Amino acid sequence: MSQTHIFADIPKQLPEELFTTLFKNPHVHIERIVSQGHASAEGFWYDQPWDEWVLVLQGQAQLAYEDQADSLLNAGDYVLITAHTKHRVAWTAAEEVTVWLAVHSCSPD
Amino acid sequence: MSQTHIFADIPKQLPEELFTTLFKNPHVHIERIVSQGHASAEGFWYDQPWDEWVLVLQGQAQLAYEDQADSLLNAGDYVLITAHTKHRVAWTAAEEVTVWLAVHSCSPD
Repeated sequence: MSQTHIFADIPKQLPEELFTTLFKNPHVHIERIVSQGHASAEGFWYDQPWDEWVLVLQGQAQLAYEDQADSLLNAGDYVLITAHTKHRVAWTAAEEVTVWLAVHSCSPD
Repeated sequence: MSQTHIFADIPKQLPEELFTTLFKNPHVHIERIVSQGHASAEGFWYDQPWDEWVLVLQGQAQLAYEDQADSLLNAGDYVLITAHTKHRVAWTAAEEVTVWLAVHSCSPD
């Protein structure tokens, strides 16, 4: 089977965060997220009915939660966001691209 | 939530491949595999009833399949091994540690 590189096809300009589905079946959705200086909208919280496991592959970012201390994520750091844990992206590095791998345990569809 | 580093706790000696479960729920099993010079036993084929998505985070390895060309995987390369695709690890780098991230779409249990 042909392999693909996780850092392939990252555009030089990122007006919006870039979400790319790497794999999806009825059990799991794996996506790459590329950010640069992006953050969730003020006051917005993700509230997902599925578990999400995220690994920062490059860059730096901070996740904020409604009810617990923030996670500062450098390259190589991973964290589990259990279902219905309200969270948001507090910030991502402005000077370099941050590449996340996100594994959602079920499709939201 | 507290974060953990994907390269944490890698022993200096690896008599066997090291399998570490990073997350597991009824839908997905995420594990880290650390190899150094390991390969599947001659003539052995993995034949799994679930999809597996693997990403090499460090090192180099080659996957062989029963019915198709091999995958040479350098750091950053990922590949999907669909259910019941017979595969084996042909080799992993001897001079450095190879760290794999494997996402199994269902628990084998």
